[in-house]
Amino acid sequence: MPREKDVEALKTIVTESPIPVIADIHFNYTLALKAIDAGAHCVRLNPGNIGGPDKVAQVAAKATAAGVPMRIGVNSGSLPKHLHELERESPVEALVQAAVEFVELMESLDFENFKVSIKSTNVPNTIAANRLLAEKIEYPIHLGITEAGTKWSGSLKSAVGLGTLLADGVGDTIRISLSTFHAEEEVKVAWEILKALQLRERGPVLIACPTCGRLQFDMDTVVAEIEQRLEQYTEPVEVAVLGCAVNGIGEASHADFGITGAKNEGLIFAHGKPLRKVPQDDLVDALFEEIDKSLDRGAVDVDAQKAAEGAEWLQRIEDENADELTPERIAQMEAAAAKEKGVDVTAEPFLKPVGGNGEAGRERPKLDEDASPVTGRRFTRA
Amino acid sequence: MPREKDVEALKTIVTESPIPVIADIHFNYTLALKAIDAGAHCVRLNPGNIGGPDKVAQVAAKATAAGVPMRIGVNSGSLPKHLHELERESPVEALVQAAVEFVELMESLDFENFKVSIKSTNVPNTIAANRLLAEKIEYPIHLGITEAGTKWSGSLKSAVGLGTLLADGVGDTIRISLSTFHAEEEVKVAWEILKALQLRERGPVLIACPTCGRLQFDMDTVVAEIEQRLEQYTEPVEVAVLGCAVNGIGEASHADFGITGAKNEGLIFAHGKPLRKVPQDDLVDALFEEIDKSLDRGAVDVDAQKAAEGAEWLQRIEDENADELTPERIAQMEAAAAKEKGVDVTAEPFLKPVGGNGEAGRERPKLDEDASPVTGRRFTRA
Repeated sequence: MPREKDVEALKTIVTESPIPVIADIHFNYTLALKAIDAGAHCVRLNPGNIGGPDKVAQVAAKATAAGVPMRIGVNSGSLPKHLHELERESPVEALVQAAVEFVELMESLDFENFKVSIKSTNVPNTIAANRLLAEKIEYPIHLGITEAGTKWSGSLKSAVGLGTLLADGVGDTIRISLSTFHAEEEVKVAWEILKALQLRERGPVLIACPTCGRLQFDMDTVVAEIEQRLEQYTEPVEVAVLGCAVNGIGEASHADFGITGAKNEGLIFAHGKPLRKVPQDDLVDALFEEIDKSLDRGAVDVDAQKAAEGAEWLQRIEDENADELTPERIAQMEAAAAKEKGVDVTAEPFLKPVGGNGEAGRERPKLDEDASPVTGRRFTRA
Repeated sequence: MPREKDVEALKTIVTESPIPVIADIHFNYTLALKAIDAGAHCVRLNPGNIGGPDKVAQVAAKATAAGVPMRIGVNSGSLPKHLHELERESPVEALVQAAVEFVELMESLDFENFKVSIKSTNVPNTIAANRLLAEKIEYPIHLGITEAGTKWSGSLKSAVGLGTLLADGVGDTIRISLSTFHAEEEVKVAWEILKALQLRERGPVLIACPTCGRLQFDMDTVVAEIEQRLEQYTEPVEVAVLGCAVNGIGEASHADFGITGAKNEGLIFAHGKPLRKVPQDDLVDALFEEIDKSLDRGAVDVDAQKAAEGAEWLQRIEDENADELTPERIAQMEAAAAKEKGVDVTAEPFLKPVGGNGEAGRERPKLDEDASPVTGRRFTRA
């Protein structure tokens, strides 16, 4: 809020905003007073650049009268002059010292309705300074990495810095500062960090394996479609997409829903239990049918017969991939499969093992990894 | 490496790869033996699904003979049966117990050339398990979040989980597991996490402020262009893009190069010192001229006169934004500006303050925030 005319805008914003509005004030304490009069829900200021303790006292008095909290912010770029020598020796201690001095100033003014932030572009310094600050003060702490960068690098930098602090319970409010065309990206990243640490639930969680040599369906496309369709959901439903059933379903037994696919068919499961198997092309639609049904009914709808068929399909894969999948056993299974009349080998589970090359004279399934739709696609080369 | 025929492919990959190649083995210990014969630089296996201690012993013996290390991996989805009850009570303790038992197995086989990984899709469990493991064993630890998700959410989840551990020195190698069309994204994210924590340097670092009400140039576009052009550089040059000179240049004094812009002109600085001011349209080109010159010469090339002009420009902004920018002072400055003959107000520094509305009869600069190129653009609404 750098200008007088922003006061008028703030009045409208405060009235129409569905969320609390914090006025960011620099240098000009009269704008802080006017922001409070305009109805700001919180005022952010740096007590070091507002014109001295008497000006801070005036803002604190008005904030107290209005019941408005403040955020007291310290930035690595603008520490008080008497801390510059300490800053050269230990930037972290200088940041914390500045924050503690501001806290003491506010306490001397009998104002304690505030949170404190220490911000820096340097992630290790931000982590160390906020850990130290949390040991020294009892007030809430606001976290952020300033000038983090663009949507991609800035988000990652913020996730590392804020995630590290939040994982240990340091931090009460957060800001993701991105240089982006779309400011709402900041909020999305903030939610994702909170969700990763299970500090907040909001909207679906998508789990997807990175795929490996066993993959034999076009999983990247399926995942992309599921992610897109999940954006319409606000419920904290957890969905797992697994390239194979070997470790996958066990690892994803906590997921509300999941799918795992083969070349031509796949399995829909819920909480680690098979629901039904469906043709590959219907996998995503069928998954969302199950999700929608469960959200409508509040419980997963299990069709006993379909579940049994799905379980049978899964059992077949698990049998083929039991603890000891020795070359001997693979050869045995291949021989058995080749003997089956009219078997459509391309419809076999993708984990169907293929034996070694060069053993002439033995019948083999026609399943060929080279024909995999994903061959040569996942790695792009310039 | 799930198939016999992969052995032949591995031989070629190992020969042609510029980086070490790790063979990922499940179930089939003979493939582990063949992978070592094929020249794999490391073998990853789960001692619990390879067919018993005698099979593990055979792999260990061959690895010892070949001088090949192993990665011993534990996944939350496939813990040994005797740990399932512990897993229900404490998933974290069960994961660590499984890893410790595998370590003891390897030690009983006189094999100690390994690293250990505990992977889970659950970020808090991954953090807790690896912290506990690091207390219990002396071997290197490999970190990863399995099935993290897509490029966006999976990267953030990994940054939170791995960043938290790496920030405290836990973890020696890392894998980012993404469900993405472009597997190389995993490596880019890994580097970004290491760079954020200053554990590794690689390529440029771009710092960019998130912009605020004081911004008056098209910074998002400038940042996007700079990020794109920096991709051509491998040097660890740090570049800062700041929306304003107030806190910015102080905060970015560690940056090798930086720019800050106004409506029609901007400043290029290096290590917090002005280099030269340039017209807005030439800002990015001029920045890269300076970067290229410095990389060629190994030192920043300072033109004393241009630096002085830049410093003067900066001083003018700083004067206008000194500690006490009271309404009275703003009015005084505005009056002075309005008296200047033929002044091109649009070319004034963007921090040129604009007084309150509604005070009729006073001459005002024509600078109008409503005409800002960024007005109404940063927030997109559906």
